[in-house]
Amino acid sequence: MPTISKKGANMPASPIRKLVPYADAAAGRGIKIFYLNIGQPDIETPKNAREAVKNADIPVIAYSHSAGMLSYRKKLVEYYARLGIELSTENIIVTTGGSEGILFAINSCMDAGDEIIIPEPFYANYNGFAHSAEVVVKPIESSIEQGFALPSIDTFEKTLTPRTKAIMLCNPSNPTGYLYSRQELENLGEWVEKHDLFLFADEVYREFVYDGNTHFSVMHMDNISQNVILLDSVSKRYSACGVRVGAFITKNKEVYNTAMKFAQARLSPPTYGQILSEAAVDTPASYFHAVLADYEQRRNTVVEAINDMPGCFCPLPKGAFYAVARLPIDSSDKFCQWLLEDFNYQGKTVMLAPATGFYSAKGKGQNEVRISYCLKVEDLREAMLCLKEALKIYPGRVE
Amino acid sequence: MPTISKKGANMPASPIRKLVPYADAAAGRGIKIFYLNIGQPDIETPKNAREAVKNADIPVIAYSHSAGMLSYRKKLVEYYARLGIELSTENIIVTTGGSEGILFAINSCMDAGDEIIIPEPFYANYNGFAHSAEVVVKPIESSIEQGFALPSIDTFEKTLTPRTKAIMLCNPSNPTGYLYSRQELENLGEWVEKHDLFLFADEVYREFVYDGNTHFSVMHMDNISQNVILLDSVSKRYSACGVRVGAFITKNKEVYNTAMKFAQARLSPPTYGQILSEAAVDTPASYFHAVLADYEQRRNTVVEAINDMPGCFCPLPKGAFYAVARLPIDSSDKFCQWLLEDFNYQGKTVMLAPATGFYSAKGKGQNEVRISYCLKVEDLREAMLCLKEALKIYPGRVE
Repeated sequence: MPTISKKGANMPASPIRKLVPYADAAAGRGIKIFYLNIGQPDIETPKNAREAVKNADIPVIAYSHSAGMLSYRKKLVEYYARLGIELSTENIIVTTGGSEGILFAINSCMDAGDEIIIPEPFYANYNGFAHSAEVVVKPIESSIEQGFALPSIDTFEKTLTPRTKAIMLCNPSNPTGYLYSRQELENLGEWVEKHDLFLFADEVYREFVYDGNTHFSVMHMDNISQNVILLDSVSKRYSACGVRVGAFITKNKEVYNTAMKFAQARLSPPTYGQILSEAAVDTPASYFHAVLADYEQRRNTVVEAINDMPGCFCPLPKGAFYAVARLPIDSSDKFCQWLLEDFNYQGKTVMLAPATGFYSAKGKGQNEVRISYCLKVEDLREAMLCLKEALKIYPGRVE
Repeated sequence: MPTISKKGANMPASPIRKLVPYADAAAGRGIKIFYLNIGQPDIETPKNAREAVKNADIPVIAYSHSAGMLSYRKKLVEYYARLGIELSTENIIVTTGGSEGILFAINSCMDAGDEIIIPEPFYANYNGFAHSAEVVVKPIESSIEQGFALPSIDTFEKTLTPRTKAIMLCNPSNPTGYLYSRQELENLGEWVEKHDLFLFADEVYREFVYDGNTHFSVMHMDNISQNVILLDSVSKRYSACGVRVGAFITKNKEVYNTAMKFAQARLSPPTYGQILSEAAVDTPASYFHAVLADYEQRRNTVVEAINDMPGCFCPLPKGAFYAVARLPIDSSDKFCQWLLEDFNYQGKTVMLAPATGFYSAKGKGQNEVRISYCLKVEDLREAMLCLKEALKIYPGRVE
């Protein structure tokens, strides 16, 4: 039998995925599971956007332009203009989900052996995409005590090597929910400019910002306009994860033209998803107001409940719909599995994401979990009750 | 300004894409262009499949399973069973177009520096995907005189090195339209088994087989069931290129599990496309009969016309909807550009694909073009008249 590739053998598998069989088995035993492990919102996709797909009358579902439908790119120019970001349709490549944008950024800017600095904990799939291009992830730890703020520029400086090619940021952050401040970003921007690096910024949670804060985009920093690649997606914004539509955005012509070669090789992004996304740009502001009010309440429910549990700590995230909590446990992988395999409280349990999957450095995140608060408040209350009871009897509890 | 990657700089750009600005300029001058350069069928996507999307009532367009919707994978099992291919849903990963399947196959089975043997001319984007994984393409030339039949096993043997890891076949072939015979495939299968290689088979044109011939799939060879990865797509089958749905199929568990890690990193294939594709499996046979009858007539129109032109030769393809023709020209790149830039016959011209883009070896395909016969017969007749007149006056004509 022929052997698989080393790249395939070493491809990191998500620790959340490893838990799926345990969740399925628990569900099979009739246990009700609160799924706090994934960022799949329960919010309805805006009706106007879904209607656009229903009303589309296209006899031949043909390839679109490799950079995406021009009409959609024009609409995106409008969307960004409302955020104070001036773009042309020639700065935008519509991608198949945010994921493909990450791949285009890495392939266009980085060769095997090049290094990318990423504050951790970070979105686990950055690891997968870096690995598949044999790019080296250099993590810099952000601390839960400081709410996962941007590490100091000094730490970035210490991590810099001749192979450093790019920085990756997710703002607001998945998994921490941290919202980077304008000052943090401008400091980082200066440093990026000084060392002539690329800055990849994943801003897919841009709209999910709480407590009256505002989001500052890397596209607002004119001094690094040639360094920045903005990675975007409609998945979370419009609760439309399944349409697989994102965007790769840069004002750097050479980078754009290079990414277009990768885009052309895969022909085009999905047509129906683009139709939905184009209509979604006109989603009324009232939709977001309602969604944000929901999420703020959900966040408060989770964070307050956890901080009330003995030995637990959860900083208050200002954005996205995730929180990372520190729990009095020996191993988040074991704990999350135990919750599904050996525990239930009144026939219910909770599925969480072990934070180990969000650290590139081995052994980190053992006492942290990520909680995605994508459920209704009443479900979150019940889920938090399960967690509280679980922590009382978990055999691997550590004080 | 930071510099792009070597990988990006060296990423091959399609020679067809280079012609697009000339085509746009010609169209801008009011010239009518017959587009024989791309495999975008003009056939309607089956109505039952489009209706499935219209009728889908999904409040939240969520991620699907990373291997694709179970209901669609079940339907695909039915589809392959009708072809005598026994599969389970655990052999299938639904991909974002056929393109993504190629990427999964290369990443799962091959490391940088590994070699893949591909009979040429071949689908240009294989080059792009191999390049992006730093995999080395080792082309073996098939000859136009023999209608682009499979090169001898002896030639494969001569190309084998310790780094050879896989063979790639497209059957029926894009760009040649050649349909590999059962005997050719079984011979290759034995050789693949002997040397323990992977065989990647792109069978997306499976249904497009003419003159009463039948298609023999690599999945029918039990001796290499652990070596084979079948790459499939609904794009051409149902004239649904824009839905971006394909499939990665293997009975090799280790390869499947490895590809799943890459599939999980990109989360899921597009939901709407899967809904359309699932319904498309029930497309009535009458649809294909009508389509095939159309294509057979189109093929005959093109091939007969070319073989009637002095100094031209085009073998009769048995499948797909492409033909490669040899023309009395100095350079297919120059000729195809000249057709758009400097020529028109009664206000009309034709856009062709230079065959140079389908050869990995530099300098080959200079007197060959690929013709995609995706247009109506009356348009093809006019297009062939343009080509005939063009060849009479082309300054680079070579006898």
